[in-house]
Amino acid sequence: MAAAELMKSEKMFNGWVKRFKHSSAELGCDMLFTVFFPPAAAAEGVKVPVVYYLSGLTCTDENFTLKAGAQRTAAELGLALVAPDTSPRGLNIEGEEDSWDFGTGAGFYLDAKEPKWARYRMYSYITKELPAVLAATAPQLDLGNACIMGHSMGGHGALTIALKNPAAFKSVSVFAPICNPTQVPWGHKAFSGYLGEGWQAEAAEQYDATEMVKKYSGPRLPVLMDNGTADDYLQTQLHPWAFEGAAQGKLDLTSRMQDGYNHGYFFISTFMEDHLAFHAKHLLA
Amino acid sequence: MAAAELMKSEKMFNGWVKRFKHSSAELGCDMLFTVFFPPAAAAEGVKVPVVYYLSGLTCTDENFTLKAGAQRTAAELGLALVAPDTSPRGLNIEGEEDSWDFGTGAGFYLDAKEPKWARYRMYSYITKELPAVLAATAPQLDLGNACIMGHSMGGHGALTIALKNPAAFKSVSVFAPICNPTQVPWGHKAFSGYLGEGWQAEAAEQYDATEMVKKYSGPRLPVLMDNGTADDYLQTQLHPWAFEGAAQGKLDLTSRMQDGYNHGYFFISTFMEDHLAFHAKHLLA
Repeated sequence: MAAAELMKSEKMFNGWVKRFKHSSAELGCDMLFTVFFPPAAAAEGVKVPVVYYLSGLTCTDENFTLKAGAQRTAAELGLALVAPDTSPRGLNIEGEEDSWDFGTGAGFYLDAKEPKWARYRMYSYITKELPAVLAATAPQLDLGNACIMGHSMGGHGALTIALKNPAAFKSVSVFAPICNPTQVPWGHKAFSGYLGEGWQAEAAEQYDATEMVKKYSGPRLPVLMDNGTADDYLQTQLHPWAFEGAAQGKLDLTSRMQDGYNHGYFFISTFMEDHLAFHAKHLLA
Repeated sequence: MAAAELMKSEKMFNGWVKRFKHSSAELGCDMLFTVFFPPAAAAEGVKVPVVYYLSGLTCTDENFTLKAGAQRTAAELGLALVAPDTSPRGLNIEGEEDSWDFGTGAGFYLDAKEPKWARYRMYSYITKELPAVLAATAPQLDLGNACIMGHSMGGHGALTIALKNPAAFKSVSVFAPICNPTQVPWGHKAFSGYLGEGWQAEAAEQYDATEMVKKYSGPRLPVLMDNGTADDYLQTQLHPWAFEGAAQGKLDLTSRMQDGYNHGYFFISTFMEDHLAFHAKHLLA
């Protein structure tokens, strides 16, 4: 695997925000991602634990990097932050730019089956290609000591990816995740579009955290979930209660309702320190 | 003065980010501004100190609000954050959108003299109209207990506004300010365009912190200035050393060069906690 190309390097909290570009074989296009290296990563021979952050609909790698306020705490705790993009870019598929919740910026962390969307393989990209690119690019990342977090569509991604690859992550945390996408409009649109006719069975088995956790028999992963009571999507798209119920006895789940918070980055940044401290406890243990 | 209209209210760090709109008499257009109210402002009858933050070229009230990471510390310290816009908007003046460093997003915190730009009165807007609007809108702001900070063009604004109104501010802090704008390209373009022929004398007297501080005889204001050694504008547009020299004995100036930091919000957010703690010491004293 070739190393990614460094596009930009900026100092922040005595660490470095570095944006990379690489040619993705999974997706068939150039992809950008951003890594925050904590100050600890600058020492000779040191490897630092890795936090993957999966973003929500419409986001690129930049939303988290610019708005979540995660670098301060990550610098203190010695954690690297990896922020990938949310879909392939620039494939010129007809209709790819028509919706904010399908196509560009809305990869849903799945591998598409419909021929038209065959390049939408964000599941394989995140779980296989990206770690390989990171290994080739940044030897100071301890990729075997990783956790995963995400927001909204990215919360769905973090939960489903962790449930399918529990050995790869020490802990999982999610902000306002789409917990039961086979039952809500965002999921219907994405699954029917990317997976095609008969999507229901595959989506339930591969890409719906609530359905998957019912059959899950892996290790009791530590999971932290925050939702806001003022989140307009809570009742219509997120369904945290379905996941809470299904996860009983299967995961070590802490689920919190945060009074008055909505779906945006002001909510995420408020509880980011909590989430990173939660991961650090498991990563550094 | 009429109260501004509340457009949006979002919870963050147990306080509230509120975006307001009002019709500006100074500028002849609708203006937006954002206030962060710390949790302390929610208590009955409490008034909280005010930090004005003036943004740089191209910014609106949103850049600071979304990217500076200031709310966490402001919530802890009990400080309100006021983020205004950087120019009038939508006046439909010919050429107003042609440059990123002149016209829209580039008001330079001055009162223009050229007839074409007569509505560009950000100095009067920030020093007179905005405080009056805030008084009418948010009684929980202690507007007599205020400080001012800014970045780049907004650092120029913070310094020059404080030098002309030293009684209005307990302290001043700046990130990478344009310290001596009569001597640099950004200043030449702005002053010649907004002030017209013979701009040099008025600009030196009214809108150049280095020239103004030479003649300043007011109170020794506490000023904190940070610059980054990797700032591409340091040598060409900012000239902090000119200001340092001129301010000797006139201000209580702490000037720091931060190794490896550039001109952007990663730099600002890294040192934001320092700046707010500095202001809190003077505001809450």
